[in-house]
Amino acid sequence: MAIDFTLAPEHEEIRRRVRAFVQETIIPAVEGFDDEEKVLSRDEYIRTIFGLREKAKAEGLWLPHMPKEWGGMGLGHVELAMVQSEAAKTRLGPWVFNCQAPDEGNMHTLLHWATDEQKEKYLKPLLKGHKMSCFAMTEPEVAGSDPTLIRTHAVKDGDEWVINGHKWFISNARRAAFAILIARTEPDMPEGARGANTAFLVDIPQEGWNDVREVETMHGSTGHSEIVITDLRIPDSQILGGRGNGHKLGQYRLGPARLAHCMRWISQAETALDMMVDRALNRYSHGSLLAEKQGIQWLIADSAMELYQCKLMVLHAASKIDKGEDFRTEVSMAKHFVANSLNRIVDRAIQVHGALGYSTDTPLAHMFQHARWARFADGADEIHQMRIAERTIAAYRATGSTNAATGGLPL
Amino acid sequence: MAIDFTLAPEHEEIRRRVRAFVQETIIPAVEGFDDEEKVLSRDEYIRTIFGLREKAKAEGLWLPHMPKEWGGMGLGHVELAMVQSEAAKTRLGPWVFNCQAPDEGNMHTLLHWATDEQKEKYLKPLLKGHKMSCFAMTEPEVAGSDPTLIRTHAVKDGDEWVINGHKWFISNARRAAFAILIARTEPDMPEGARGANTAFLVDIPQEGWNDVREVETMHGSTGHSEIVITDLRIPDSQILGGRGNGHKLGQYRLGPARLAHCMRWISQAETALDMMVDRALNRYSHGSLLAEKQGIQWLIADSAMELYQCKLMVLHAASKIDKGEDFRTEVSMAKHFVANSLNRIVDRAIQVHGALGYSTDTPLAHMFQHARWARFADGADEIHQMRIAERTIAAYRATGSTNAATGGLPL
Amino acid sequence: MAIDFTLAPEHEEIRRRVRAFVQETIIPAVEGFDDEEKVLSRDEYIRTIFGLREKAKAEGLWLPHMPKEWGGMGLGHVELAMVQSEAAKTRLGPWVFNCQAPDEGNMHTLLHWATDEQKEKYLKPLLKGHKMSCFAMTEPEVAGSDPTLIRTHAVKDGDEWVINGHKWFISNARRAAFAILIARTEPDMPEGARGANTAFLVDIPQEGWNDVREVETMHGSTGHSEIVITDLRIPDSQILGGRGNGHKLGQYRLGPARLAHCMRWISQAETALDMMVDRALNRYSHGSLLAEKQGIQWLIADSAMELYQCKLMVLHAASKIDKGEDFRTEVSMAKHFVANSLNRIVDRAIQVHGALGYSTDTPLAHMFQHARWARFADGADEIHQMRIAERTIAAYRATGSTNAATGGLPL
Amino acid sequence: MAIDFTLAPEHEEIRRRVRAFVQETIIPAVEGFDDEEKVLSRDEYIRTIFGLREKAKAEGLWLPHMPKEWGGMGLGHVELAMVQSEAAKTRLGPWVFNCQAPDEGNMHTLLHWATDEQKEKYLKPLLKGHKMSCFAMTEPEVAGSDPTLIRTHAVKDGDEWVINGHKWFISNARRAAFAILIARTEPDMPEGARGANTAFLVDIPQEGWNDVREVETMHGSTGHSEIVITDLRIPDSQILGGRGNGHKLGQYRLGPARLAHCMRWISQAETALDMMVDRALNRYSHGSLLAEKQGIQWLIADSAMELYQCKLMVLHAASKIDKGEDFRTEVSMAKHFVANSLNRIVDRAIQVHGALGYSTDTPLAHMFQHARWARFADGADEIHQMRIAERTIAAYRATGSTNAATGGLPL
Repeated sequence: MAIDFTLAPEHEEIRRRVRAFVQETIIPAVEGFDDEEKVLSRDEYIRTIFGLREKAKAEGLWLPHMPKEWGGMGLGHVELAMVQSEAAKTRLGPWVFNCQAPDEGNMHTLLHWATDEQKEKYLKPLLKGHKMSCFAMTEPEVAGSDPTLIRTHAVKDGDEWVINGHKWFISNARRAAFAILIARTEPDMPEGARGANTAFLVDIPQEGWNDVREVETMHGSTGHSEIVITDLRIPDSQILGGRGNGHKLGQYRLGPARLAHCMRWISQAETALDMMVDRALNRYSHGSLLAEKQGIQWLIADSAMELYQCKLMVLHAASKIDKGEDFRTEVSMAKHFVANSLNRIVDRAIQVHGALGYSTDTPLAHMFQHARWARFADGADEIHQMRIAERTIAAYRATGSTNAATGGLPL
Repeated sequence: MAIDFTLAPEHEEIRRRVRAFVQETIIPAVEGFDDEEKVLSRDEYIRTIFGLREKAKAEGLWLPHMPKEWGGMGLGHVELAMVQSEAAKTRLGPWVFNCQAPDEGNMHTLLHWATDEQKEKYLKPLLKGHKMSCFAMTEPEVAGSDPTLIRTHAVKDGDEWVINGHKWFISNARRAAFAILIARTEPDMPEGARGANTAFLVDIPQEGWNDVREVETMHGSTGHSEIVITDLRIPDSQILGGRGNGHKLGQYRLGPARLAHCMRWISQAETALDMMVDRALNRYSHGSLLAEKQGIQWLIADSAMELYQCKLMVLHAASKIDKGEDFRTEVSMAKHFVANSLNRIVDRAIQVHGALGYSTDTPLAHMFQHARWARFADGADEIHQMRIAERTIAAYRATGSTNAATGGLPL
Repeated sequence: MAIDFTLAPEHEEIRRRVRAFVQETIIPAVEGFDDEEKVLSRDEYIRTIFGLREKAKAEGLWLPHMPKEWGGMGLGHVELAMVQSEAAKTRLGPWVFNCQAPDEGNMHTLLHWATDEQKEKYLKPLLKGHKMSCFAMTEPEVAGSDPTLIRTHAVKDGDEWVINGHKWFISNARRAAFAILIARTEPDMPEGARGANTAFLVDIPQEGWNDVREVETMHGSTGHSEIVITDLRIPDSQILGGRGNGHKLGQYRLGPARLAHCMRWISQAETALDMMVDRALNRYSHGSLLAEKQGIQWLIADSAMELYQCKLMVLHAASKIDKGEDFRTEVSMAKHFVANSLNRIVDRAIQVHGALGYSTDTPLAHMFQHARWARFADGADEIHQMRIAERTIAAYRATGSTNAATGGLPL
Repeated sequence: MAIDFTLAPEHEEIRRRVRAFVQETIIPAVEGFDDEEKVLSRDEYIRTIFGLREKAKAEGLWLPHMPKEWGGMGLGHVELAMVQSEAAKTRLGPWVFNCQAPDEGNMHTLLHWATDEQKEKYLKPLLKGHKMSCFAMTEPEVAGSDPTLIRTHAVKDGDEWVINGHKWFISNARRAAFAILIARTEPDMPEGARGANTAFLVDIPQEGWNDVREVETMHGSTGHSEIVITDLRIPDSQILGGRGNGHKLGQYRLGPARLAHCMRWISQAETALDMMVDRALNRYSHGSLLAEKQGIQWLIADSAMELYQCKLMVLHAASKIDKGEDFRTEVSMAKHFVANSLNRIVDRAIQVHGALGYSTDTPLAHMFQHARWARFADGADEIHQMRIAERTIAAYRATGSTNAATGGLPL
């Protein structure tokens, strides 16, 4: 029988090793930093986490998403799903294995689109964990979900491009050594046309690239920069992936990156469900344990069902990427559903915890604040719903059946 | 790689043959009977559909759920999923292949629990398609979701049992040659105890088995009988599966039977989604086609996502049955979610059709009335939510993680 | 204090009398006809219900929605709300008081728009209860929610109009002595223009008005006719409300008619909630009464809250009509919310009843099938959502606040 | 006609004055402090807001919830609804008028339950705005929704009580001059009994009352204290409302206090809806303004409908309080629905804003973090659903109809 939902033994073994490393090495080492970060010297913190990276590398748990010839573990996306979700059991996990956003997506992008020189200069330091990067597409003035509206523009001037524009929510920009920047190079293309944008590799810091602030958000004040780009001059050789390919490159990058998000979100949702059950088993009210009340059981059952569906969707979408099949509908569905399930499951876990859940005495409050971002990250809910509908309609138009838009599965 | 979502080529070939038979042989043959049944002679109708059974048997498309040594196709549950869903593209499909409820579940039950004599007398005629059967458990006075409350009781009198009680919603009873009847044989067991009931094989018609009416329901007035059992005398040899095993037998039967329901419901939900998209592409209102409106796109996208999830869940649960693993949580989740998705998707399709959807000019109205039953059939929503919660809690208690309750998947 | 939610004593007294008449006179008289209609002679049934009308008239419980000078009770819409909801406790109630749809809306329309001659010929027999009427707007080919698309067209030919077209879901057409028919008279107006349609008074039967079938629906095969209109010749004097006023007349008619629907639906929803609670108090499962289980309590609490909201909304919208204020947003909100609440509350009541709720042994199954229509009747859900949004946006544009679109209430 | 939804002219005039004072005096004065609080001296801030209080007092806009003889505006709860919602258009509004939680509820409580001496010492300084107070009931160890479980206990020792226990989420404790503290005085009463608790007036600071930290929550680190009570000695004369009346006093206090929350939440929800519409009118994506897209219109329409319902519910519940009728069911419904609507409306507004909504560049992010607390404050969702269901069931038991539990309205 072909249909199978289990890992090959060698991958099961990798999973076991990742889990052991996360539980036995990472978690004990970083425990306490959450609160004590302020107390302990920042130096000690940095030494500790870089030390963890060295240990991970020594264990062969490094770059799970990269091919072996580039120093990675050579895993497919299905195997990656389990590595990412094990890693995300602690916030720093993906970072220790060097598979964190946005570097992970940028590595994929460079591997696929960069010239040999660009790989040498930008990809290799990322792979070694010596440098970090960012991806600069979103703009405050126009809808992030519609990249054909991008206003940051690059004008050719000899061998250089002069770029002006405005970006924000550029994650990791303050720690990045370079950015992949999307700008409009073909001003005359009509709205909606997909060949108007180009990707540039921008070294940071650089004149014309002004990181004016970190945008404060619901989850705090660090992480997402606002960038004002003023007469930034970039040589033609810094174009990544060819002129006019900015949109295509962005789309290519986002598929696996979205799925990697899902893998980490699933891990968090599982933590929230574990906490919900634990609380229900320990809290007594109005004559019985919460776990014995029908309504609380419904919250648990709904969460378990949704989490189960998340996992099946991510495994299937990963399997389609691995097979080289068109995965866009499946990734859109997974992105939309996992992001929303995460929000719902964390919300239910908070409700079951009562006031404690609203406090930061448990991690749930911060998880809630971070989770809200998931419904915007890499495409807002509405953009994915639109894409799913369009592809369902297209499937029906092409074949007289929507079957191909619901996974192309054998039923 | 082990994880795989595709059928083996030999099964893909079976799927192709089933689909062709359904589309090219069954549908053209029964077309028109829906309306014209009243006009054409009932004899002609019966001749036609029995003729289809002979053709199916000749094609080797017979008893897809039975082992080859019992005349079946020897398929696993995963393959069965695709056969059932192809078959259910037309109402009579499962019946033509002799895999319709409740006979299908009864065949499984007899194969597993019956003595050789019982198999000879009851199973074989079912397999040949010469007889039909019913399953008599539900009672009007007590909650069907809690079989430990069953009041129909059997009292030993020499070599016989004297049975009195009251059953209803006994599907297929008027066409059945026999019933599997669940009655309480151990009156002294406490409420909730699971060894109090026993299954009996009851020939129909028989004195003491009184089919007092067909219960009229939302979808019409045929199919579900109410039975008053008065001093029905059944020899001890007619016990099926051993005294006190009635609850266990019912549970054993229900797992695969529930999944077979899901497979057929998925097929209907897909039909509804196809119709929803078709309508959206052809109906114009307030300045645009419905298919171009964001809200209608949300209805389509939500339906596509849910149907996709239904399919993944059914495939995975079927895979667990095939592997001999504990499938109860997965089947409960699938049963609950597919039944509710069917209701939602058909409801949305009706809304997109407007008044036409409320009329019986399309099949949607009848699908809606039938679909409501899915939320009670083989366990009401609430019983499955309770079971899912209980198993999620149990998993957490046993391992400190809910992971085992969300599919036991490798992430 | 001005704000008050209680009836004036004289209206409370009317309410008491309506309730007594419904409970003590109508219900006992029609009891049994539901089932026995088939058994008893149709003549007896008709004699009985016309007899009830005479009794109601004698009691002064007649035409609650009409002014006293036209033989009615001279009630405002607020008082009407309580009369309609008391009346709707039994299916025939509104009919006995002669305030049933569509006659009630047609009476309002004629009172407002008809000439004296038209009132004499069409309104008076309606008021006496000697004739019935229908309203013919909806067409199968175009979205009923967008009357600017209407295709039935009338062409002037001397003093007559020659009308051709196609209507369906024309409620009451088979019992009607006349129709108010909406047809396009100004073919050159652009799509979306509101002056293109005209209302005509059409005597039935008449050549050119072909009632080709009753459309079978989810709730049965009677009530809604399909009409093919072929060269129907109508004198110019039969125009109702002036040429080009068809859209305006339809809108005027629909406000109070929609609210009258809501009043009757509220009554049904209350019956469903009563039944839900009754069942929960009498059904035992898994160790407790349903009424003691948290989840079932949630179903009850949600239903009570929604029903409470329905009542507040209808009272407020009725109050706005009575004050001569713009009531369109409030009526749209009430129509949308009451229709959907009715569906949800009946659905929950069915679920709490289990298989019994799916059978027709209780009225819930038929209520469910009828309730689905409420989401289309007098404007589908989607049209009301669009209108509410448009008016919310318009309020914000006009005043910088959405306040006026949420009831214009003093907070 | 008795039923009326408008304010008396004298109250409309008060509303106008409150609105003018909020918009023209408070908002301009505090503008800028939100961000610049850090820059400007705290002294200046305090001078400013105390200055606003003096101006409000001078305008007669002071203590809207108190009788005139106690220096208040002598408004009923209906009028209070509009004052509170106008005031809450800016965060400090209720504070300026001295009607902020928890002081407002404590004033009500003291007015009703305190002795003359207690009123002199505790109520009067509150009314003057010279002191603040807190209410200490919730405990970390037991469900806040079930006050019969309270563990903080007081043991009589001569004329004094010795109190030990543990409280948290005690809002305003750090600024309070006294607390109303709920402790168990009757240790032998069975679980669920309502006479076991007593209220004490506790001066702060005082030995034995240890404010160990402010509990950090989703919305920041100030406002909610954790208190360890160790051998706190309170004279018998400090009992408030009589021994054993702690539960009753808490319930009495909570009704109007919950409604006051609702009034302020409605104001916030309206701000969120205004922002949602404004954004939809100014953001362009995929070929049209957001305001022109059907799905976004649905978000607006649903929000408008819910806000409309919130307002009707609060007005009606307030009216019941003013009439001296039993308002518990109505207040529970309002509390539950307004809290949840606030969360949904703010969430939708954020989604329509995209990344901007997740940033703190608009107030929406902080509103979202605060709104989550509304589903716990003064009774978690689940406790209100339980109470609503219980009262619906009780109404049915008492009268054979649930009518009395859906507002006791005239339909």
